Formats: sequence, C-alpha cells, structure tokens
Amino acid sequence: MKIFIAGVDGYLGWSLSLYLAARGHEVSGCDLFLRRDWVAEMGSQSATPIRRMTERLEAFRDNFRTNLQFRRGDLGDYNFVLNCFRSFQPEAIVHLGEMPSAPYSMTDVNHAVFTQMNNLIGTLHILYAMKEACPKAHLVKLGTMGEYGTPNIDIPEGVFTIEYRGRKDTLPFPRQAGSWYHQTKVHDTNNITFACKIWGLRSTDIMQGVVFGTRIDEMGEDERLITRFDFDQCFGTAVNRYCAEAVIGHPLTPFGKGWQRRGFLPLRDSMQCLTIAIENPPKEGEYRVFNQFEEVYSVTELAEKVKRVGDNLGLNVVIRNLENPRKEMEEHYYNPDHKHLLDLGYKPTHDVEKELEIMLRDLIKYRSRIEARKEALIPDIRWDGTRKKSSFIA
Amino acid sequence: MKIFIAGVDGYLGWSLSLYLAARGHEVSGCDLFLRRDWVAEMGSQSATPIRRMTERLEAFRDNFRTNLQFRRGDLGDYNFVLNCFRSFQPEAIVHLGEMPSAPYSMTDVNHAVFTQMNNLIGTLHILYAMKEACPKAHLVKLGTMGEYGTPNIDIPEGVFTIEYRGRKDTLPFPRQAGSWYHQTKVHDTNNITFACKIWGLRSTDIMQGVVFGTRIDEMGEDERLITRFDFDQCFGTAVNRYCAEAVIGHPLTPFGKGWQRRGFLPLRDSMQCLTIAIENPPKEGEYRVFNQFEEVYSVTELAEKVKRVGDNLGLNVVIRNLENPRKEMEEHYYNPDHKHLLDLGYKPTHDVEKELEIMLRDLIKYRSRIEARKEALIPDIRWDGTRKKSSFIA
Repeated sequence: MKIFIAGVDGYLGWSLSLYLAARGHEVSGCDLFLRRDWVAEMGSQSATPIRRMTERLEAFRDNFRTNLQFRRGDLGDYNFVLNCFRSFQPEAIVHLGEMPSAPYSMTDVNHAVFTQMNNLIGTLHILYAMKEACPKAHLVKLGTMGEYGTPNIDIPEGVFTIEYRGRKDTLPFPRQAGSWYHQTKVHDTNNITFACKIWGLRSTDIMQGVVFGTRIDEMGEDERLITRFDFDQCFGTAVNRYCAEAVIGHPLTPFGKGWQRRGFLPLRDSMQCLTIAIENPPKEGEYRVFNQFEEVYSVTELAEKVKRVGDNLGLNVVIRNLENPRKEMEEHYYNPDHKHLLDLGYKPTHDVEKELEIMLRDLIKYRSRIEARKEALIPDIRWDGTRKKSSFIA
Repeated sequence: MKIFIAGVDGYLGWSLSLYLAARGHEVSGCDLFLRRDWVAEMGSQSATPIRRMTERLEAFRDNFRTNLQFRRGDLGDYNFVLNCFRSFQPEAIVHLGEMPSAPYSMTDVNHAVFTQMNNLIGTLHILYAMKEACPKAHLVKLGTMGEYGTPNIDIPEGVFTIEYRGRKDTLPFPRQAGSWYHQTKVHDTNNITFACKIWGLRSTDIMQGVVFGTRIDEMGEDERLITRFDFDQCFGTAVNRYCAEAVIGHPLTPFGKGWQRRGFLPLRDSMQCLTIAIENPPKEGEYRVFNQFEEVYSVTELAEKVKRVGDNLGLNVVIRNLENPRKEMEEHYYNPDHKHLLDLGYKPTHDVEKELEIMLRDLIKYRSRIEARKEALIPDIRWDGTRKKSSFIA
C-alpha cells in the first residue's frame, strides 16, 4: 500500500516507516523537526543519538532498497499538505504529526495556545486535503487513551449504547481529558467524526496507551536506524523515564500515590497495531475507534517491574515517589475495553520484563547522554500554573 | 455588579449592555468589530441602521447617566485580555466574542481554520487572564444547543448520571455538533470544564437556542440604541431571516423537509436569562450548564407563525422550502431539558406571535435596507464543500 506518515521523524513515525517498508509498503512522509526543537527547549536530548534526516534516508535506502519519499514542511500550511497528498496519492495517511506532551501544553498560556492551534490546524488541513486530493484514503489518527480520563464505569471503544429515561441511542463515549494537550485529541476526535459524517471520509482513531521501548526488530544492527528516546519531564513517558533513571542510578519516580492505572504497550506492539489498522481499513464514511494497549498497570507496578529487571542487571534500583505536579486521580477504577485490535489479529507481547531488559541494555550504552541532561528528568511544570521542582515524598 | 462583556458590539452583546445598565450594573466591554466585517464579506448589512461605537457610547451615556467602559481590541491578543481584566476587575465576564455562524465556518478550509482558531484562542486567553487577574470572577460563556446535536434520547443540562454494565457515574452528556462552528463550542465546553477543575474557576456555560427579535424595552425610542439585525445566509438566524423575507415579499424559506426541531427564544428572554445567570453565580470551582430556550418548535411551525402574523399585517406571506445546504436530520426526536433557569426565576415570554408582530413592524421601517441586500438571503454555502445556490423544492 501507499502510506503517508505525517511526523515521520518522531519516536513512532520513524519506527513505523521501517516497520512498513519491511512489509513491502511504499512509504512517504513529512516532518518539520519540531520535536527536536521542543526537546532542546526542555534542556534535553534524545538518549539515543538519532541521525539527521539525510542520513536516516540513506540508511533507509541501504536497508530496504527503496526510498522513503520525504518532504520537509508544516502541517499548518494547507498547500503543503494538499501538495503532499496530490503528488503521492496515499491509500493511508498516518497522522503522528502533533505536539504530544501534556506538561509542555501546561507550561503557560503561550504553550497552551500553541498546542491547541498546532494540533487542531494540522488535523483540519489533513481532512480538507483528503477531501480534495484523496477522498478514498484512510486516515489513521493518533489519539490517546487519555481522552477518556478515568470515569467510574467501563470505557468502551469510542461509542456506547445506553438507555436513558426509557429511550436508547448509540453515542460517543464522554471524554474527560486531563491537560490542554489531551484536550486537543478530544477536539480532533470531534472534528474527525464530523468530517467522516459530512464528507464520507474514513478514519481509524487510535486511543493509544503509553508506549515504551527503545527499538523494533526492523532496526536490526544498523545504528543509523535507531529511533529517538526521550526522558525529560515533557517528552519522556513514564516507563521510558523510569528506564533512563535506572540506568544513571537515579530513583524511579512515580508521581503521587502511584496508583494511577493506565494502558501500556511496547513500541513493537504499537507498530503491529498501527499496521493492522492500516491493512484493514474501515469502509467509506466510517469513523471507528480502537483502544490500543497491551495491558493495564499502575505506574507503581511498572516501576517495580523496572526495578526487578534493573536489579538483575546489577543496577541497584530504588523507587521514590515524587510530589504529583498534575491534577489527577491517584486511585480510581479503570477498565477500558480493547477488543477491536485483538479481533483483527493483534498478538500482544506479554513478556514486558523481557522488553524492559532490552531497553535497559540499550540505554546503558547511552548512559552518558542521559547523565548529561539529567536535570530535565524531574518535573517542575505544575497543573496549577506554578513552576516548582517536585520533591520526593518521604 | 461589575460586568465585562466580550463582544459588546454584537447582536446580544450590545443589547445586554443596555439591559444590565438599566438594572444598575456597571458595564465594561470590548470588541474588534469583526462581526461588521463578516456581514460585509457576505455582501450584506444589518437591517437596522446600527451606529458606530462612538455614537453608541454617547447614546448609552445619555440614557443611563453612566459610561460603558469600552476598549477596542482582540481576544486573540492575550495581553489585551489580561489588561482589560486587571484594570476593570470584573465580577462577571460574559463571553459573546466568538464567530457565531455555522455556514461561515463551512465556507472553505480557511474559514474553518479561522473559526476554530478565533473561538478557541479567545476562550483560552479569557481563562488564563481570569486565573491571573480575577480568579473569583464568574465566566458566563455563550455556547449553543447545537453542541448536543439531535440524539435519540432526552438531552439533560450538560451532564447526566448513567448506569453502564452495572456501574454508575455522572458524566458530560455526549456532544454531536453539526458544523465547524458548532464544534468550536464543544471544544470550548471541554476546555472550560477543565479550567474549572484544575484552577477552581467558576463558569456558567449557556447552551442557547436560536434567538429572534429586533429589540428589548431598554432601547426605548432612542434609535441610536438599536441592536444589529442580520438576515444573510450566514449571520441571519432562522426566524430573523423569515421576518426579513416576509417584509420584502420573499417566500419564507425553511430548509429541506422543515421538520428540524430546535429550541428558540426571543431576544428579551435571552437577556433575562443571561442576567439570571450573572446575578446567581455558581460557587468556586463549579462548572454548570444551562439549556437556554423558551420552547421547542420545528422550523416550519415558526414559518407558519410568521406567516400568520405577517398576513394579519397585510404582508401576504408564502412559505416555500429550499434545498437544505446542510447535512442534518430533518425529522428526529428532540426533547431537551430546560429546568435550571426556570428554577432560578426565568419567566418565559409565551406570546411568540406578539414578539413577531413587534419584529415585523420594526423591520417594515427598514424594508429598503433588506431589499438592497436580498441576494444575501439565499444560501449557497453547502456542507459538502461545494458552493451553489439552493433552489426551491417544488
């Protein structure tokens, strides 16, 4: 298939381009390299020494005997998006080109507004350009499990059928997002649902859990193919941050009580799931939602897993909870469905500890790169609008 | 009370400033006069010859013996908003400063993006400026009944308690908006809910029905105090457009089958309800929703009312349905609650036909101003992205 990846320089985007090429798909993509700038703004860097795009493209060609058709440009520029689609004529568009950090969006009014504008405009431009240039293409859009928040009832996949005062309807499941960033994903969900309804576009909206991992098999031993790995307070996700901490002898830092439960999945599962979505498109006019994660864990359970694996590798890991900079429930019911992907053949990696071992072994090689930016690990962006480093709780 | 009105030059904003001043409140407001530009862009004008702001302010002072403290500026400029709140220290902020037209937002990709940016950024700036300058103030935000769409179950006021798979929770009622503009109101709802939760702000989010009317009593006989009245395809709401049509001998034009049911209310009821919300603020941290309308009618029932009243005035009115430029259900269940405002003392105007008579008598005076822009009446902006004037159906 001809697949266009918006945000192909990112953690997921770069990995996906390799995964799809290895399966024989034709890949094009775009990026503006903003993620590299944002991480630098946080005073951090990718733990993995990722290459510049020119070198990435050479490595791609060396390994897969085909070009990744790359264009540098801004999803905020409608004509750029339109021209990408007009010339490549994609059958699937994977939209990973958004600002993905909750704390970054909570920094101040400018970051809040930037996040909402950047994410909403990009998606609106993609929808209009699809209608104009490739109305039969399939939009695979990255949302987040965070759109749902933590309601006290089960979380279905996108929609649910309910009875209310004696009448029935099938309706979008209520969203209760917990940051300006998470809100953008809810806004996108609403906008995309509407575009599918009025224009007959087709889309799979991926409510993805928290991804962790340093590699996928398709990267092989070519160091130039490695994907980025962030550990700073904004762009490092929970497990990735724990692993970076373990490697430099820093305590692992669950926030608050640490009983927040979330869906998680390894990077290789994310690639597998996105590819299942791409290769099994919905029908014209259909908007569907996949809850994409392997299993639900509390952030403390995951820290304990990292500790176990790290200790086995001789790292001597401790866990110390930090003041929670976020406003979120720290103990709550959490029971989301995740059936659609399993029905389509998703085979979850059940051996999380093996994945963590691969990660820690990879990161040990880059220990000095993490050490050099370790100030970026501890959060100081708070949901109440103040800015103050979190202290350890006891 | 000290009340700040964002969008004080508009249809509702100007009327509200008079209504509040007559009740002894201290009013400040801002506007960028964009509504005047948008209506001009549609090739239209207000049927009522509204005055420039300088003349409006003079008339305000002559009638109410106090100044309306007006600032010209852009809600898209954070420091402008912050300075407004810092200097005036409002107890309530009524946010009417958004782009309010569904068809305008559906024109093309630029109008879609402009609408979402303009409305979202303005509201985000207001929320941040409140947190900074007046965190105890009460935000009265204009949303729309259109946020809910037309579900096949009753529509509660904002939230509902449901049982799902044997567990219970109280959740936001699902929104299913029918245009890029209506989507902005949903996005705002989500953003404001979140701001109240994390910062303890207080807000009343008004899900308002379709407003109609040319005047409120507080305008008296001073022509300088009259509010705008739009009849073009974008900024003219259903009943206002019917009345303009009746006055120039044009058929009244319900869209499609004409059985779309909506909540409607006269301008004087809108003023009464907004004032009730202002004078009865929620407590700190509370986000509440009022469904604000007088009664539910189909668009055909309203056309028939206008015909009856117009015929009595000798206008000889006919009704001819137009092709529906929108994508919407034309026959559907519709049963929204509207209890909160009644509980707080709202006394609905039940005599809609008397209100229509006042409107038609007012508009007859401005017949030539409507005649001069009658091309703007018939819609050509279609939800499918094409542009073509709607024809009469039979």
